Amino acid sequence: MDYDRLRELGQQLRVDAVRAADAAGSGHPTSSMSAADLMAVLLAGHLRWNPATPDDPGNDELVFSKGHASPLLYALYAAAGLIDDEELLTFRKEGSRLEGHPTPRLPWVKVATGSLGQGLPVGVGMALAARRLDRTPARIWVLCGDSELAEGSMWEAFEHAGHEGLDNLTAVVDVNRLGQRGPTRHGWDTAAYARRVGAFGWHTIEIDGHDVAAIDAAYREARETTGRPTAILARTRKGRGVSAVEDQEGKHGKPLPDAEEAVAELGGRRNLRVEPRLPDAEDHPARPEPGPLELPRFDVGDRVATREAYGRAVAALGGARADVVALDGEVSDSTKARHFAEEHPDRFFEMYIAEQQLVAAAVGMQARGWRPYVSSFAAFLSRAYDFVRMAAVSRADLNLVGSHAGVAIGEDGPSQMGLEDLAAFRAVHGSTVLYPCDANQTARLVAAMADAEGVRYLRTSRGETPVVYGPDEEFVIGGSRVLRSSGEDKVTIVAAGVTVHEAVKAADRLAAAGVPARVVDLYSVKPVDAATLHEAADATGRFVTVEDHWPEGGVGDAVMDAFADGRPVPRMTRLAVRTMPGSATPEQELRAAGLDADAIVAAAHDLAVTD
Amino acid sequence: MDYDRLRELGQQLRVDAVRAADAAGSGHPTSSMSAADLMAVLLAGHLRWNPATPDDPGNDELVFSKGHASPLLYALYAAAGLIDDEELLTFRKEGSRLEGHPTPRLPWVKVATGSLGQGLPVGVGMALAARRLDRTPARIWVLCGDSELAEGSMWEAFEHAGHEGLDNLTAVVDVNRLGQRGPTRHGWDTAAYARRVGAFGWHTIEIDGHDVAAIDAAYREARETTGRPTAILARTRKGRGVSAVEDQEGKHGKPLPDAEEAVAELGGRRNLRVEPRLPDAEDHPARPEPGPLELPRFDVGDRVATREAYGRAVAALGGARADVVALDGEVSDSTKARHFAEEHPDRFFEMYIAEQQLVAAAVGMQARGWRPYVSSFAAFLSRAYDFVRMAAVSRADLNLVGSHAGVAIGEDGPSQMGLEDLAAFRAVHGSTVLYPCDANQTARLVAAMADAEGVRYLRTSRGETPVVYGPDEEFVIGGSRVLRSSGEDKVTIVAAGVTVHEAVKAADRLAAAGVPARVVDLYSVKPVDAATLHEAADATGRFVTVEDHWPEGGVGDAVMDAFADGRPVPRMTRLAVRTMPGSATPEQELRAAGLDADAIVAAAHDLAVTD
Repeated sequence: MDYDRLRELGQQLRVDAVRAADAAGSGHPTSSMSAADLMAVLLAGHLRWNPATPDDPGNDELVFSKGHASPLLYALYAAAGLIDDEELLTFRKEGSRLEGHPTPRLPWVKVATGSLGQGLPVGVGMALAARRLDRTPARIWVLCGDSELAEGSMWEAFEHAGHEGLDNLTAVVDVNRLGQRGPTRHGWDTAAYARRVGAFGWHTIEIDGHDVAAIDAAYREARETTGRPTAILARTRKGRGVSAVEDQEGKHGKPLPDAEEAVAELGGRRNLRVEPRLPDAEDHPARPEPGPLELPRFDVGDRVATREAYGRAVAALGGARADVVALDGEVSDSTKARHFAEEHPDRFFEMYIAEQQLVAAAVGMQARGWRPYVSSFAAFLSRAYDFVRMAAVSRADLNLVGSHAGVAIGEDGPSQMGLEDLAAFRAVHGSTVLYPCDANQTARLVAAMADAEGVRYLRTSRGETPVVYGPDEEFVIGGSRVLRSSGEDKVTIVAAGVTVHEAVKAADRLAAAGVPARVVDLYSVKPVDAATLHEAADATGRFVTVEDHWPEGGVGDAVMDAFADGRPVPRMTRLAVRTMPGSATPEQELRAAGLDADAIVAAAHDLAVTD
Repeated sequence: MDYDRLRELGQQLRVDAVRAADAAGSGHPTSSMSAADLMAVLLAGHLRWNPATPDDPGNDELVFSKGHASPLLYALYAAAGLIDDEELLTFRKEGSRLEGHPTPRLPWVKVATGSLGQGLPVGVGMALAARRLDRTPARIWVLCGDSELAEGSMWEAFEHAGHEGLDNLTAVVDVNRLGQRGPTRHGWDTAAYARRVGAFGWHTIEIDGHDVAAIDAAYREARETTGRPTAILARTRKGRGVSAVEDQEGKHGKPLPDAEEAVAELGGRRNLRVEPRLPDAEDHPARPEPGPLELPRFDVGDRVATREAYGRAVAALGGARADVVALDGEVSDSTKARHFAEEHPDRFFEMYIAEQQLVAAAVGMQARGWRPYVSSFAAFLSRAYDFVRMAAVSRADLNLVGSHAGVAIGEDGPSQMGLEDLAAFRAVHGSTVLYPCDANQTARLVAAMADAEGVRYLRTSRGETPVVYGPDEEFVIGGSRVLRSSGEDKVTIVAAGVTVHEAVKAADRLAAAGVPARVVDLYSVKPVDAATLHEAADATGRFVTVEDHWPEGGVGDAVMDAFADGRPVPRMTRLAVRTMPGSATPEQELRAAGLDADAIVAAAHDLAVTD
């Protein structure tokens, strides 16, 4: 290694970070400058990748967990010849791929970062994929900030990686001692971090993060360490190299006061080019082609929980497709992911009760081309909401399955009831939200999810519900089913999941009472089947929606989405959970929440006779 | 201490837990039995509280972070004479206070638990309040499970409590080695936990959790330890005392197979009563009465960011009211909570980048009677969504303030843009959601939030916006403002926050073009001002909603809430963010998202001329 050249490369990265932020008029140059030497040595001496084939599983991955250091990342790409100087200076401008925080608009960025504490847990998912799925020697390098070590998700990652002995994972922590508004908890006390990370089973190395020889040695030590991951705790100075900002408070997240002077102090512009170090050529056996899918079949009239149907369907899907993997948060007995675990133990990942790491690992795996199905209780997926939000920014393809939805779970009470999940996941950009009412429908939707795009959420129920659809019926994303209709319907009842069964009972009673009612099973909550809803609106002009969810953001609001284009809107009565439930039997809960057949009959009757 | 009696008390707690779960037909007796000796010794020998005055700040707090061990908690209350045997056997039945997981329907339960990993961070908030606000010698005891040590939020708590040296906090970890579906990561290796917790600055004690003398000694040691919190890592056996279930997999979360036999094996029913050990009588000086509130005043026409108005208003509120506290997640320079920190350093809490602990601490503080204001970026509050969900189950009164909302932040890009916050917080039971458009309105709403109930969310903006309301205008929760109207309005534009200013511009252009438009500033997104919306619907029959948020769950859906009772619904066109934004200037972002005055004019015009 030519250490003088590495020092020069570090200065070049600083210069380019300063220039990019100056051109943008915003950004985080000082947070880039602290880590410049760390990244110079990594790029020139240790990262093995072929930028021409970014999706090759033999490539190392580099994740900027401290995403705000994006100017440094883009300066690295410039040094590697992947972007030119003109593009570098488009940083943060409209239309540029060089966003304020990295996103996969650049082909070498596999996941978006910028919400702190996410890059390392995503890196754990990549390292698990490389080790257990891809079976390549690829290494995952994650540049972390010191501030983000306060995030619990980082410790979920340290624990999981330590437990799995992921020696293909290296965390490089840029300990520049200054956060957004002042000093971090531990300042430059890298020993404090080393004690903590070491206690979680990691190998730790403390270095001066501006000593290129020490950095080089640390990376070599990380690559040679077997049986456990390595954390390099590097003492650095924020804004390193420019006296106007170096190691000063109040210099976070803004361009340097005088970029020209700063570039001069850094020794001026350089034009070093770094040839990527390619990974060893290896045969990566292609995954087997999909085989025939034999979904489980359930008999109409039997009672089967949709969570059970999920477990059996995803296990069947795993049999047909070698790219399907499943992850669960230590509740696979309840979510029924255990069926997959039993049939495909090599592709099942027990993530324990750490929902952030659970979702992040799936994001990391899909970034390497795998198709993850993630399960926990619907309520507990809310723990990972920021990760799901960021998964959408990452353009991730991801299946989430939340069980134990709604008051219908009964005795366990409100802490276990997913009652905001439809709202939360509908409000994720590009998401799909599905809520099946029976076992055959569930199985079909589990299969349909596999090839959908974006974040797909499936809501399952705890209790057994009657099978109402035959095993050969097809269900597409964006569809619905009309379960009752006549030429004289006076009102439309729109239901999903457990309330479908109550709606059918209600419609039969309404018909007997001379108020024929249409029933729509809105199993695809997002996207909604607008055509069927429009037809029902034209026919009846009155809708009762009924959902085991808070009134906000769920089925009722989804129905309205179909009428947001200026067309006439049906009159609406919305039945939803409006008081805080306690413990009771499922039947008592549905009755208390006003979601049972009696409540639907009353609401539909009232609405049908409204002027 | 009479250790024989303590052992008997432990058996009584087991017997009552078994009986309660048996009567319910569900519940978690085995998870209760592992911790019975730990809790027997705590109740009889160390917990100092007066159950007759549960809100006395001199009381110790007992939090069941492993909320599923609720039968044990209720058995403790029975042993303390607070509930009788008849009520004990109502466990999990409709109407009972004894829910599946503890909630504040019982006066001695200050916070709901049942989503794992929350009790300890909430306990940190209680310990901070006791130490820094109440200034009482009260101790906070938190019973934790071993499975939940996988949750990152626990490590946020360990880090924060260690850093603060909270020696009034004790974590009692019931290491029964079995989770929901099998063994935990570390089994009975309490040393593995001790290394980790110890590295975070805690005193640790490893004991046999069924040895009452060892438990007693550990509690004494915890009480005598100064300068740091204590974690007691207790090896226990799940289902302890009943051979049919003890230390066996597959026995989680279900009643014992034969309760009668189990009770017999445990030595039969007992009727021991434990007199609460009262705290030392102390004078707790009453907090000063509220003084006059002098909110900041902003001049109409000036440009002020609503986040700046938040910071100055909450600082003023802190001056008038001694019960107001503020917490921030290491972004107080951006949220402007720094104004409070500067004026009231004793009541400001820097929680670093750990949003779960941030919100949990506030939940703990409000449980002891304080009024917390919690700030971070709107996007990053999504990190704590499960804590907010549980805060509602806890009946917590809590103010959340999310800054940097929407695409209008500009260059930082989508990772920093809160675009799902309105949906997420509207879907929290009993919540209030506010989104002011100017500085004086913000200040008024900050004051109004203080006395609202439940979870209150205020959304602030990064950029400066013109002050349009005078400093003496009043704004109530549930209100709105009509900014433009005439007798001939053809369409209503409903906006909030940054889009209000675009809507006014649009309305002025529409009026000039012969299409008079009403403009409603819907600053109270939940509850909505239904009367004003109904009046606008009657007058115009057509609504354009415009919001800097994804289309789902925000202002558009909030407007529909006012028409969910069967009345005629206006025709709607909804303008919202429909594509993934990148980096750009705020003006470019609003234009690209179709939220600027041009887009509003076009949409309103089209809708106004629709048949």
